[in-house]
Amino acid sequence: MKLNDALEIISNSVSNILATERIALTEISGRILAEDIYSDMNFPSFDKSAMDGYAIKKGEIKLNLRVVEFIPAGKVPEIEVVNACCSKIMTGAMIPKGADMVVKVEDVERNGDFIKVIRPSGKNNILLEGEDIKKGDLILSKGRKLNSVHAGLLASVGAVAPLVYKKPLLSIISTGSELVSPDKTPGPSQIRNSNSSQLQVLAMESGTEVIEATQVDDDEQRIFNMVESALAKSDIIVLTGGASVGDLDFTSRVFDGLKAATHFTRLAIQPGKPVLFATIGNKYLFGLSGNPVSSFVQFQLLLKPLIAGLIGNKEADRTIKLPLSEEKTRKKAERQLFFPVIINDNMEVQAVEYHGSAHLNSYQSANAMACFPIGVKILKKGDIVDVRPL
Amino acid sequence: MKLNDALEIISNSVSNILATERIALTEISGRILAEDIYSDMNFPSFDKSAMDGYAIKKGEIKLNLRVVEFIPAGKVPEIEVVNACCSKIMTGAMIPKGADMVVKVEDVERNGDFIKVIRPSGKNNILLEGEDIKKGDLILSKGRKLNSVHAGLLASVGAVAPLVYKKPLLSIISTGSELVSPDKTPGPSQIRNSNSSQLQVLAMESGTEVIEATQVDDDEQRIFNMVESALAKSDIIVLTGGASVGDLDFTSRVFDGLKAATHFTRLAIQPGKPVLFATIGNKYLFGLSGNPVSSFVQFQLLLKPLIAGLIGNKEADRTIKLPLSEEKTRKKAERQLFFPVIINDNMEVQAVEYHGSAHLNSYQSANAMACFPIGVKILKKGDIVDVRPL
Repeated sequence: MKLNDALEIISNSVSNILATERIALTEISGRILAEDIYSDMNFPSFDKSAMDGYAIKKGEIKLNLRVVEFIPAGKVPEIEVVNACCSKIMTGAMIPKGADMVVKVEDVERNGDFIKVIRPSGKNNILLEGEDIKKGDLILSKGRKLNSVHAGLLASVGAVAPLVYKKPLLSIISTGSELVSPDKTPGPSQIRNSNSSQLQVLAMESGTEVIEATQVDDDEQRIFNMVESALAKSDIIVLTGGASVGDLDFTSRVFDGLKAATHFTRLAIQPGKPVLFATIGNKYLFGLSGNPVSSFVQFQLLLKPLIAGLIGNKEADRTIKLPLSEEKTRKKAERQLFFPVIINDNMEVQAVEYHGSAHLNSYQSANAMACFPIGVKILKKGDIVDVRPL
Repeated sequence: MKLNDALEIISNSVSNILATERIALTEISGRILAEDIYSDMNFPSFDKSAMDGYAIKKGEIKLNLRVVEFIPAGKVPEIEVVNACCSKIMTGAMIPKGADMVVKVEDVERNGDFIKVIRPSGKNNILLEGEDIKKGDLILSKGRKLNSVHAGLLASVGAVAPLVYKKPLLSIISTGSELVSPDKTPGPSQIRNSNSSQLQVLAMESGTEVIEATQVDDDEQRIFNMVESALAKSDIIVLTGGASVGDLDFTSRVFDGLKAATHFTRLAIQPGKPVLFATIGNKYLFGLSGNPVSSFVQFQLLLKPLIAGLIGNKEADRTIKLPLSEEKTRKKAERQLFFPVIINDNMEVQAVEYHGSAHLNSYQSANAMACFPIGVKILKKGDIVDVRPL
């Protein structure tokens, strides 16, 4: 199956977005807004001074004006500006009644209680009530991925506990009798389980809550039991290892045993061809590769769009188009080949050294992933390629 | 002062990088590695099969071979492959003594305990010990910003508690008698304090730990006391409001009162011209604008490089160069003007609506910030501009 068909299946399988919760403003970074936010007031909420200066009547700009009040920000003016009077006013302070202009402090000569405008200008220096945002205006839409600017906006309108979509709960089950925990020294024929740490961080970075990361030998019954128990508490279950069709590849059989609907078992992608996707109701099961490079690519391609769908993220990771800095070739072209690249300061795509899926540290310096389309064996210098920033 | 001069001052003021700490692998996202990491073993750590198949002697490929052992991943082979014998072997399993080739399971015909290779190929399908990484190889360097791939690499070499730089401790003090807390409804002449929420999220996203966010009226003594108390527990103190030279702009006086060395008080940038930077020993003090658009830009320009310096981040945010999608003009050109933009899918820079620093929600849809250099009043469609992704 081609990647695009797989992505359509995944997208169609998202029947409903997850539940919502209210969180504190300081927690919003990266969360997805689940409500439209309207302004509860005008911005500015009153006519205010844009400058430190003197609030005057424009018509009296040529007169000697008596200073009758000092208006710092936060004070409600008490005296109306009339009859050759004016008020000293600070930036952000409320314009007093009667005044229709603020003269900058630098443009005024002061003598005791009086001022004289020495450099008149046409500017009013008044920010008018509602000129930026009107009460009732929509200021943020549902589906927006939230950042610091939105924290400020939400605070401005008093939305101190915005509604966001809950994070999908994700469990990781690493299968493989050769695996030992990363804090152990592997014996002969064993390897450390690096996949689990990588996927935990990747899943957190992608907006899920990792509730469990376990490890199990190649034993069908034990894998079955673990998946069954994870199903009870997770929205998404990620298995690694056993995704192929060998004697000890149990993922497919376990999914069948659980009566999951398996939607695909292999994709025309490289690395990561053996990869399973199954659903049971609103639960999503993936069988990823035991190889960390392959599982990384599979997660980027398949899990990220699923997660974006589940949390209503309308700005999910996009593919951008950039020119390749050097020719790149391959021998076979039946699959879509993904390879690690660096987007350089000139916005060119530079391939990094990559020996294939066993090349453990090939992605460590990459900031993006580029791809050869199916049927393409040569990408020339300057060719525009599809790039996914990581 | 020009921005570049300010950045040089900031960079020179970072005398030493912060202390280090060891953290769990699941916590590494975005942290900066404070040690070089070397591999404690070869990768692969033993000759292993790249395929499900049969481990044979290449010289015996034409013979009928007797299957003497089954070697799943994780098992140490027990029987040497000699005299027309072979072993069934799974992907990732250790190659038995005597064997120098794995024939794929699909290329073999099996009869009881015997196999015959029906599609011989030149490929060995053996991943050799150390072919990817040698024991003692440097696999990750100090200064690297860590992500999920690094979690996998660190796990592979057993570095389950990597050394990273501590997060700078940052305090935010919002000054302004007009401010009320975001959960309150502002009275006449008051506004909600949105700056604090914005800066808290921005500071966390930038790699600091926000230990305190407080608010204080325009009262020099009270501001002084708050800054003094924050100094005792923070590496960085960010004040907002009072950065200019008006009657109620106390930031500069407070810094002087604390005997801080003030390095600049205004920059040729727009928005955000009045902005203070001071140091006391290894403590860094900023006086940012009370206006949330200006303080956002000031933080992006000045705080981010300081933080990157303090945590030894060698991949700090960079400025990229991209073409502008439409002409943009301005009237005055004495300052470097920063404006909100969207980098679109064609990697063009599109300006978003921006009325100036009072325009509260101008940055809400932006994913980057572009700039007019000093002296430039017209940027034409297609002109290459400096862009900072947000």
